[in-house]
Amino acid sequence: MVAQSASAPHALDQLTIEEIKCAAGLIRAHRSEISFAFNSITLHEPVKAELLAYFKDAQAVPDRKAFSIAFESGTSTLYEIIANITTKQIEQFTLRKGVMPMITLEDLQDTEAIVRADPRVIKLCQDIGIEDMSQVYCDAWTIGFDERWGTKHRLQQALMYYRVTEHDNQYAHPLDFCPVVDTQAGTVVEIDIKLKEGSKYDRAPVPKAQHNYMPEFIQTYRKDVKPLYIEQPEGVSFTMNGGEISWLGFKLHVGFNAREGIVLNNIRVDDPETGKERSMFHRLSIAEMVVPYGCPTKPHHRKHAFDVGEYGMGLMTNSLQLGCDCKGSIHYLDGIISNRIGEATVIKNAVCIHEEDAGILFKHTDFRDENVISTRNRKLVISQVFTAANYEYCIYWQIYLDGTIQIELKLTGMLNTYVLSPDEETGKWGTQVADRVIAHNHQHIFNIRIDPAIDGQNNTVVQSDAVPAEEEVGSEANYYGNGFYAKKTLYRTTLEAAADYCHETSRTWDIINPSIIHPFAGKPVSYKIVSRESPALLAKEGSLVWRRAGFARHTIHVTPFVDHQFYPAGTYVPQTDGVATDGNHGLVEWIAGAVPVLDTDLVVWFNFGLTHFPRAEDFPIMPAEPVSILLRPVNFFTRNPALRVPPSLATFGLHGQVWDGTDQRSKLVDQQQQQQQQQDSHGTGREGGQCCA
Amino acid sequence: MVAQSASAPHALDQLTIEEIKCAAGLIRAHRSEISFAFNSITLHEPVKAELLAYFKDAQAVPDRKAFSIAFESGTSTLYEIIANITTKQIEQFTLRKGVMPMITLEDLQDTEAIVRADPRVIKLCQDIGIEDMSQVYCDAWTIGFDERWGTKHRLQQALMYYRVTEHDNQYAHPLDFCPVVDTQAGTVVEIDIKLKEGSKYDRAPVPKAQHNYMPEFIQTYRKDVKPLYIEQPEGVSFTMNGGEISWLGFKLHVGFNAREGIVLNNIRVDDPETGKERSMFHRLSIAEMVVPYGCPTKPHHRKHAFDVGEYGMGLMTNSLQLGCDCKGSIHYLDGIISNRIGEATVIKNAVCIHEEDAGILFKHTDFRDENVISTRNRKLVISQVFTAANYEYCIYWQIYLDGTIQIELKLTGMLNTYVLSPDEETGKWGTQVADRVIAHNHQHIFNIRIDPAIDGQNNTVVQSDAVPAEEEVGSEANYYGNGFYAKKTLYRTTLEAAADYCHETSRTWDIINPSIIHPFAGKPVSYKIVSRESPALLAKEGSLVWRRAGFARHTIHVTPFVDHQFYPAGTYVPQTDGVATDGNHGLVEWIAGAVPVLDTDLVVWFNFGLTHFPRAEDFPIMPAEPVSILLRPVNFFTRNPALRVPPSLATFGLHGQVWDGTDQRSKLVDQQQQQQQQQDSHGTGREGGQCCA
Repeated sequence: MVAQSASAPHALDQLTIEEIKCAAGLIRAHRSEISFAFNSITLHEPVKAELLAYFKDAQAVPDRKAFSIAFESGTSTLYEIIANITTKQIEQFTLRKGVMPMITLEDLQDTEAIVRADPRVIKLCQDIGIEDMSQVYCDAWTIGFDERWGTKHRLQQALMYYRVTEHDNQYAHPLDFCPVVDTQAGTVVEIDIKLKEGSKYDRAPVPKAQHNYMPEFIQTYRKDVKPLYIEQPEGVSFTMNGGEISWLGFKLHVGFNAREGIVLNNIRVDDPETGKERSMFHRLSIAEMVVPYGCPTKPHHRKHAFDVGEYGMGLMTNSLQLGCDCKGSIHYLDGIISNRIGEATVIKNAVCIHEEDAGILFKHTDFRDENVISTRNRKLVISQVFTAANYEYCIYWQIYLDGTIQIELKLTGMLNTYVLSPDEETGKWGTQVADRVIAHNHQHIFNIRIDPAIDGQNNTVVQSDAVPAEEEVGSEANYYGNGFYAKKTLYRTTLEAAADYCHETSRTWDIINPSIIHPFAGKPVSYKIVSRESPALLAKEGSLVWRRAGFARHTIHVTPFVDHQFYPAGTYVPQTDGVATDGNHGLVEWIAGAVPVLDTDLVVWFNFGLTHFPRAEDFPIMPAEPVSILLRPVNFFTRNPALRVPPSLATFGLHGQVWDGTDQRSKLVDQQQQQQQQQDSHGTGREGGQCCA
Repeated sequence: MVAQSASAPHALDQLTIEEIKCAAGLIRAHRSEISFAFNSITLHEPVKAELLAYFKDAQAVPDRKAFSIAFESGTSTLYEIIANITTKQIEQFTLRKGVMPMITLEDLQDTEAIVRADPRVIKLCQDIGIEDMSQVYCDAWTIGFDERWGTKHRLQQALMYYRVTEHDNQYAHPLDFCPVVDTQAGTVVEIDIKLKEGSKYDRAPVPKAQHNYMPEFIQTYRKDVKPLYIEQPEGVSFTMNGGEISWLGFKLHVGFNAREGIVLNNIRVDDPETGKERSMFHRLSIAEMVVPYGCPTKPHHRKHAFDVGEYGMGLMTNSLQLGCDCKGSIHYLDGIISNRIGEATVIKNAVCIHEEDAGILFKHTDFRDENVISTRNRKLVISQVFTAANYEYCIYWQIYLDGTIQIELKLTGMLNTYVLSPDEETGKWGTQVADRVIAHNHQHIFNIRIDPAIDGQNNTVVQSDAVPAEEEVGSEANYYGNGFYAKKTLYRTTLEAAADYCHETSRTWDIINPSIIHPFAGKPVSYKIVSRESPALLAKEGSLVWRRAGFARHTIHVTPFVDHQFYPAGTYVPQTDGVATDGNHGLVEWIAGAVPVLDTDLVVWFNFGLTHFPRAEDFPIMPAEPVSILLRPVNFFTRNPALRVPPSLATFGLHGQVWDGTDQRSKLVDQQQQQQQQQDSHGTGREGGQCCA
């Protein structure tokens, strides 16, 4: 809440409303001759040395600093500024050439207005029978890259749609042309029109059939979906102190910024054996993502959005609604982002924090005597939802009682659509989801930045491959041929660590601390990365998206930790060509030259995601499709860390119940069953049969 | 409940208590000179032609029949019998030679008694200081196969453990020898002792350190896990009629048998566009599984349990507890299994049926005007938990409102452990999870039998591979190099259909009905199999487990439908050598000879599972590890089938809320937040910044 900013912020808290305002003031005062249009004002995180000192001693508070990117108003002249809010000093003020910062929501709104007013656009609409330009809409996308302009102008491409009525779903009515807009100049610089490719139609008529999902268009809703409530009458199991969470032995800080959205910092655990606090991860975030589309026909060929680096997952974050996006007992954190005039915009309820039941944590029955233990799992969920034009991404950072960390994404929202002419074949690049409405094949590849701290900063990444024993079937060493083991490959350098997922060996990766050996396993303590959902980039080697999304060339990359090295596709992503290596090419530059990554402070960049061939079921609005990645402790804890979680039930068959943690509010659906249950409640569960007459 | 058997059963209901008894009576009367020890008496399912007629006309009731396997008491003489309960006739009575049926719980209990009483076992225990044989336990496992005996005797191997006290966890105290037991003769036929392999110890001393998890051993439980309740005050959204479920447009029958446990039959949906009932799947079950262990050292080399075909997932099913294994509003079905004397044993609450909230179903926000829809998903969960000696398998059959069917398994329970001598290295075949206690590498491979009925019985399976466009980067056809598509490969024969998962192409499989074309997509209606978790068998080609588990040689197999062809590793699994092809070799025999599977009634056999390298965290009891497979509609429905699910919230930014389905019981954790929320409830979510002083 806004009120939280009144107390002294944690060193990793987002900038407060006041701090954004102050930073803008400092910048304006520093160069009062310039009229600034702020692109972003965000926390400049303290360097790691300062942070580690602060984690040890809360009095060692680092200076609060703002990182700002700002245009000179109405121009493409760009400055990069670090303002020290604590000392009121400008620490850096740099002119940046040949780069473009993120698109903002304000930029997107501008583009629609520019397009609607352009005479050529109006003419193109009239030619297909559209007279009222208020019925014409555009989703503004970054241009990606187009060699006709490079980075000379700040460009967007306008994906065009029509609405039959005010509340109509525009994605059912795509138009057949794509204006390219210079958002600084406020002009349309070019209009790309769909190639005819043998169609007898010069222009594709707009599909007029409506396909809607809002209540006014749905004739009747089901009445048989009975309400389901999640209640915690005694409150939740976590406590909040600003952005600091403490939950059942796990502790972490939740940060938020315009680019990455949620950032988890300083994740640690009170070791259940010793009570000693142990570090797990220094920082976790989704550092980049790319959505390459698979239709090579112009102008679709350039569709591939970097929703982190080009748009900002924080900037586009939804304001969440209690009882809708989040059920149960909820704690919200607001997001604070900057706007063009250097003030703050508050996204209310940007981050949702709550607990969920997570089914059985462990269970065992001794078949001899019906001795049973059954213990339920719980997860802490830290979530946000952001809207990238048509798509919705729901992001869930989840911690389980067994120490597993899961990053789950659910993809929903709207398919990006295009129009087919009446005589046009669908072809192989997409699916016709409604009459003459095509949705193109695409991928979503998310890059998670893992800054590990497995019992300390110096870690190593080890590839683990499940492989058969080398010895032949029938040999003495492998007589029945069943031998297999985990083959371990140490990543010694950045080049060795640029590796891919391998299904045949169920490949995983251990982030180990080589200096801390597990007392029983005799191996280094570790957390393992588990992802089966790491599709390879399908765009060809050397393709535009392959060049620009260097992080997507391999499933995993490892680099030595460098302060403020956060963005694997470069700090400035819009309009890069993926060729220049000018300090803005991210991972491609950082891994060059086989830099050592053995037993040192390192960062892991890991891809996961999915390949989406659209289905008719994804229209007019997509059912959520989940994808996730796990970080699991492997020989990190001395033993199962959840043994002290109270069981739901423990019984010794002969001695009856020894622990009753049963959920007393659970009910049998059928009243008759309920009565039966009471009568039988002392049985062992298995009954002898009754004789038939 | 037991009372349900009073009404006329559904044709696919399990045998009732009375029917089991009657079948046993018919068999005894048929051959009164034989003393039978029944191995199983279970439903002999009607042939498909009868079933389809019955589904059309409930009056066309097929005869109720029992399938029984029975020994002549105290011998290995085995009979296979079909008893028609309706006509009171024995329809088949066959002597089966050279095969062994499932182990029963009674067999397992016998083995422990036999081992404890054996003088050689007693002597081996005394030699390592164990005097009290009541402290010695064994997990009886099927022998798998051992060429020393083949199928001449009915054998089990006894994995030996020790308990320091009565309630102690035996898996912390493995013993170093493995008796082989003839359960029909009641004798120990051999004792395999661990090879020394250079150790100076003749015998491995039993590890005495206790590692426990039951309440009496846990000093203190956490007190900060706050209760979480799931409540449905208006009841559930499904109705039950015996084993028939109707849930929000989806309908199916739940069956249960000793071997497969839960079986889902006749899954269909009221098409949301037409209201017409459409068939989806005829029958779904977990038809087999294998757990190959990866230690080639004798006698571990033969450890690979087929928990379906050797033990029976139904037989070993737990009796579930309300509020422990299942939370919320629960409907239970009992399991009815037969015992040795031909009577029924009732597993109370064997199958749990309930609903769960499943997070966001779909959401979209129009960034222009804050128009929002947010609709929550729900799932119907049909579950069972079974105990296979040390391991627990929790099985969840789940249907979501978007038509997705998910089979999720959670693996928990106890690691199978063995002892190390004090001077012995752990080696690469396992992990030392406690001092001198090793748990071996293993895999779990589940074979799901999918009998599809995608809009009818005649279906085809198509492999779908995501592949880059063939054209080079820079060519006119693929200028930016981004083109990719789904390459489709029809499976024409059983041999073509024996295929593997491919990560590089994110391979999925479409089960299509080639005769029904989607009106928009222009492609056949289909359901897609999605599994990234289908590890290849790591045992080598030609190995014992590769021979026996023919289904595990490839991720997928397809066969033409044949009545009563249910078991991919053979009807009789224990003690097969995987070489004989005598009608008991399952898939290996069925796929031979390139049988056509195009546009016909077919069955898909699909593997999923995981490779488990044990961790210290898996001891003394394993946190549940999930694995799942999805069946997703692809161009099966005309459009998103869940549009009529009431939204949680729909608003038009300018016109306010248009649909309020908010969960009114959800609460803000912080009372202060709650008040703030009320004050701000008319805002759009995004607020302008406040000026700093």
